[in-house]
Amino acid sequence: MMIVMRPTATEAEVQAVIDRIEAVGARAHPSRGDEVTVIGAIGDREHVARLELEGAPGVAQVVPILKPYKLSSNQFRAGEPSVVEIDGRRVGGEHFSLIAGPCTVESRDQLMTTAHAVQEAGASLLRGGAYKPRTSPYAFQGLGQEGLRLLAEAKAETGMPIVTECMDARDLEPVLEVADVIQIGARNMQNYPLLAEIGRSGCPVMIKRGLSATLEELLMAAEYVLKEGNPNVLLCERGIRTFETAYRFTLDLMAVPVLKQMTHLPVIVDPSHAAGRRDLVLPLSLAAAAIGADGIIVEVHPNPDEAICDGPQQLYADAFSDYAVQVERAAALAGKALSAA
Amino acid sequence: MMIVMRPTATEAEVQAVIDRIEAVGARAHPSRGDEVTVIGAIGDREHVARLELEGAPGVAQVVPILKPYKLSSNQFRAGEPSVVEIDGRRVGGEHFSLIAGPCTVESRDQLMTTAHAVQEAGASLLRGGAYKPRTSPYAFQGLGQEGLRLLAEAKAETGMPIVTECMDARDLEPVLEVADVIQIGARNMQNYPLLAEIGRSGCPVMIKRGLSATLEELLMAAEYVLKEGNPNVLLCERGIRTFETAYRFTLDLMAVPVLKQMTHLPVIVDPSHAAGRRDLVLPLSLAAAAIGADGIIVEVHPNPDEAICDGPQQLYADAFSDYAVQVERAAALAGKALSAA
Amino acid sequence: MMIVMRPTATEAEVQAVIDRIEAVGARAHPSRGDEVTVIGAIGDREHVARLELEGAPGVAQVVPILKPYKLSSNQFRAGEPSVVEIDGRRVGGEHFSLIAGPCTVESRDQLMTTAHAVQEAGASLLRGGAYKPRTSPYAFQGLGQEGLRLLAEAKAETGMPIVTECMDARDLEPVLEVADVIQIGARNMQNYPLLAEIGRSGCPVMIKRGLSATLEELLMAAEYVLKEGNPNVLLCERGIRTFETAYRFTLDLMAVPVLKQMTHLPVIVDPSHAAGRRDLVLPLSLAAAAIGADGIIVEVHPNPDEAICDGPQQLYADAFSDYAVQVERAAALAGKALSAA
Amino acid sequence: MMIVMRPTATEAEVQAVIDRIEAVGARAHPSRGDEVTVIGAIGDREHVARLELEGAPGVAQVVPILKPYKLSSNQFRAGEPSVVEIDGRRVGGEHFSLIAGPCTVESRDQLMTTAHAVQEAGASLLRGGAYKPRTSPYAFQGLGQEGLRLLAEAKAETGMPIVTECMDARDLEPVLEVADVIQIGARNMQNYPLLAEIGRSGCPVMIKRGLSATLEELLMAAEYVLKEGNPNVLLCERGIRTFETAYRFTLDLMAVPVLKQMTHLPVIVDPSHAAGRRDLVLPLSLAAAAIGADGIIVEVHPNPDEAICDGPQQLYADAFSDYAVQVERAAALAGKALSAA
Repeated sequence: MMIVMRPTATEAEVQAVIDRIEAVGARAHPSRGDEVTVIGAIGDREHVARLELEGAPGVAQVVPILKPYKLSSNQFRAGEPSVVEIDGRRVGGEHFSLIAGPCTVESRDQLMTTAHAVQEAGASLLRGGAYKPRTSPYAFQGLGQEGLRLLAEAKAETGMPIVTECMDARDLEPVLEVADVIQIGARNMQNYPLLAEIGRSGCPVMIKRGLSATLEELLMAAEYVLKEGNPNVLLCERGIRTFETAYRFTLDLMAVPVLKQMTHLPVIVDPSHAAGRRDLVLPLSLAAAAIGADGIIVEVHPNPDEAICDGPQQLYADAFSDYAVQVERAAALAGKALSAA
Repeated sequence: MMIVMRPTATEAEVQAVIDRIEAVGARAHPSRGDEVTVIGAIGDREHVARLELEGAPGVAQVVPILKPYKLSSNQFRAGEPSVVEIDGRRVGGEHFSLIAGPCTVESRDQLMTTAHAVQEAGASLLRGGAYKPRTSPYAFQGLGQEGLRLLAEAKAETGMPIVTECMDARDLEPVLEVADVIQIGARNMQNYPLLAEIGRSGCPVMIKRGLSATLEELLMAAEYVLKEGNPNVLLCERGIRTFETAYRFTLDLMAVPVLKQMTHLPVIVDPSHAAGRRDLVLPLSLAAAAIGADGIIVEVHPNPDEAICDGPQQLYADAFSDYAVQVERAAALAGKALSAA
Repeated sequence: MMIVMRPTATEAEVQAVIDRIEAVGARAHPSRGDEVTVIGAIGDREHVARLELEGAPGVAQVVPILKPYKLSSNQFRAGEPSVVEIDGRRVGGEHFSLIAGPCTVESRDQLMTTAHAVQEAGASLLRGGAYKPRTSPYAFQGLGQEGLRLLAEAKAETGMPIVTECMDARDLEPVLEVADVIQIGARNMQNYPLLAEIGRSGCPVMIKRGLSATLEELLMAAEYVLKEGNPNVLLCERGIRTFETAYRFTLDLMAVPVLKQMTHLPVIVDPSHAAGRRDLVLPLSLAAAAIGADGIIVEVHPNPDEAICDGPQQLYADAFSDYAVQVERAAALAGKALSAA
Repeated sequence: MMIVMRPTATEAEVQAVIDRIEAVGARAHPSRGDEVTVIGAIGDREHVARLELEGAPGVAQVVPILKPYKLSSNQFRAGEPSVVEIDGRRVGGEHFSLIAGPCTVESRDQLMTTAHAVQEAGASLLRGGAYKPRTSPYAFQGLGQEGLRLLAEAKAETGMPIVTECMDARDLEPVLEVADVIQIGARNMQNYPLLAEIGRSGCPVMIKRGLSATLEELLMAAEYVLKEGNPNVLLCERGIRTFETAYRFTLDLMAVPVLKQMTHLPVIVDPSHAAGRRDLVLPLSLAAAAIGADGIIVEVHPNPDEAICDGPQQLYADAFSDYAVQVERAAALAGKALSAA
């Protein structure tokens, strides 16, 4: 960490900073320039994190040198990307994963029809929501336990691993009985007790980036899981908030190559929630695959016009295989091949 | 809700929208203009919320007419502001509340010194964190149960009601034993199971606006509490995320008068977290009071330079009474007087 | 335009709105619901634009129905995309255009080496800045007239049409002598006198989206050119401002398919300025081509490490043909082929 | 400037950075830590600005130490605030300036009525637009030269100095004949040729912050004027763009105290354009005054309901003196008194 002093900082203020650095157990390396003094603080993350020198008397700027994330950093695996194994399917590396299924589990029929359609088209994992975080308490909140039961049935019938959301640590036990990957929604990206609990479970987890979370914060969320000894973390870009009103969220595809430089963890893209509109899903998916994403999570429904939730963004199940063929071609541009069952 | 059709929409597409409206139990009122057709959907919130017509064939735009929030809306109380009573202290209406105390409970000494200082200066509630949501899993996470015990002691000694954060529904029981107001942090604004649980508890709650939450979403979070029969909700503006890098967050003071038009709930401002720097706290507090906030929640520490957490933004306890005098004067501009014990 | 009244609006307030609508020459269509009254205002853009009813007594919301842009809208050409012809090269439709060259014209040598390299690799237009808008008045401002002279030479030698920026209507005459496409930079997107002047010149123009401009505002900027009778307008997405600090700007690729639905004008993507870093240029370019952009404008330099300006983001001239081959493949996914000379 | 190398940077990459630093005429101070090497680049702004090391091989981060602005920095005047004198009125320091008048000059009558009303209420400068930057080319663009003539008349009659916008360097001459302060609108904040031209004129100028401009960029715009030898620069905060849709712009009042720390230039706040609604103007003005702004620029009209432009946000001329009394009281909280004629 570098502490840049103000040009007007007094010698006493410089000394106070040095004292504070030494008080937390780090070493101070002042270097006095013509206009300003810069003080390096050398020590481990835990020490340096306790400095809290922003805004201290005479301090102009505090510049972190070491990244605050550690287990998720690319250095931690010497630049080697992680490949997460999920019931035999591989996510990451040269594998491109199609994760598909309905937004919400609505009925046995809806789920099975979709599961078979996406499986035949080459999807490697089945998604489906039993617990749904809804902005409005008056909206449908998911089938809950009944939804989990249907997902278990779909898994038994198709053999596809299940991706489903958990919003509450108190529901974790029943969710773990069904889920092969637990989804942490964007709203829960910084629900630290939940992340730590899932970390302790060892179950693979896909963490969605919060609506205004920086990439560094996304990695710090992953760090909460990794720190508990669970290495099976997938990251997911699903759109951020900007001033633009022509779309629901702004899908930040630039996050993909930049995350690849920061971390060894696989990066999935969710085009459905960003767009909120079916007609944008294919172009966004092609771009996501071409830019190097490790997979796409996409919503599919046998009859979107009658969906209980997010109908307008769900792909038609019977058009899914066409979609998959095109996305596969785009993934090839980035050197990835469809992950097989 | 108004559904605006595209100029190119076919008669069949118009009819499909009408059918969908009637299928959810609402009434459709089409009006055909020279260039476009607009269809009104008349029905209650629950019906209309199920329409999901965005992006449907031929649909250009879906415009909500009724607000999605109900119990928090100004109409619900016919324009009468809510006054929340907390152990004899009143928040809202013509009362201006100073909520002050350390960021984190660190020790008996630190807490008691601060409690006495802010009480003497006219603060009506004591804040202090026992559970701290930290971006980094490597950072100090709060004293937990021991922190709650110290808060209970401070309350016994000073008689001040306690504001403290709860991050996990599994901790709610012990928190309820101490807290007079439960704080929901910005990161948990959309933690719906937690909000509903606190709603069921009946305990007053202060909900902080998420970093990129719209005012409407803040009210929807309140709605999760209110719907469970708990009317004691305070809202809190604490800074939003923008492109500006000169400060930690951008305190959105405009939210105060606009929320006053939308809702009857009291609005508190947190200048400490937005600024992250002590020297901005006073000017931001004056502005917050002058613009009509119902109170300020501010961090105070006997010795901020040695604080474990957020030291740079905490006010010096011994300078707090000067601060309080100035803020009181600014509140008077907006017609409010310091809420007394 | 629909004017949604507040539930508390009085009859007099409703009548005042109706009067205002009729006063500007439009027709009012009130429809009175159980909770709120909605008033349609029917008339042409010019009339309705003068209404200014936002915030009028009793008015809750003003919802535009007709888009404010007209000549740039997809309807204006009945859904037929525009193909702009630039000295024999076609931009738009099924053509994919590579526009390449140095950020700034620095010397004869630098420009000629780059021009030949990009031409051989299949670029159809040569870019190069003579006038550079720089955030700092202390930074290099471009070679000016001398830069224009060198661009003219490059054009004479290679036959490539020239894309170069004009920042000041007073420079327009000399720029027009060299430019085949005038670039309007992001900072000048709303420099209306400049846009209108270029509109009158008839010269093709590429308008870059402002850092926080909505797509609608970008189209309104185009409208200033189109209104003067100049149909040769290209739009360019070059990154917007968000809270993310891991990259210079956030390239908004979602803008491409959405603009395609709004307008018939070709859409170009600039990956160099968004990224500010060479290593992101290829993945962003692949994504831009795959999502359906009509072309890419990219910075290339024979020796970026010695570039006067924006060196870190410029591609190496001798690696450009590899780059072009990959981008061409991505464009094919969206059904486009490299535009030939 | 500090160049932070990647942990994986090779010795050759470190040396290349050192060479580059020396090549631009600055000195390099490498300091090699356990995990990373940090290289200080010492030299003047012009040298260091040419480094362009972002994204160079092995470089992780480039951290500016010296601010890029110089003449506008607080250091330049040793912490002494600038007081700009405008025809006998003082702006800055302990003076609080009310700048008021119609959005657009519409007619002799409208202008004179407003001018007298605001003068009697204590406004020190009269604002009024003759040239209006409008998002739509179909909207009213201002009276132009006729508007300037009316402003000259109002000045002759009331003696009030005039604030009016210039959008085009080609109009500067006639504008200078009338204007005592030239306004640079938000859209033109980075119109550098225009800024430099006004710098050469010596006329006082008020620069509005662009919709997504950082405070540093605002100061760099001021720097373009100051560099030409014109010290009479006022800065103006008028709302930025965020994700919030409940208001037109988000007035960033935090910019006021932070700018005060960065620069000696006076800071004015424009509540009218941020809000777009009359009912928010008073609370925003109180907050702006309480937080330490040097003045407010506000729109006033004798009959806003019939205004050609921005009617909904203009204050009623006959209510202006009440407004002024309240704002004056709020300014007193920040230690400022109304600037007299």
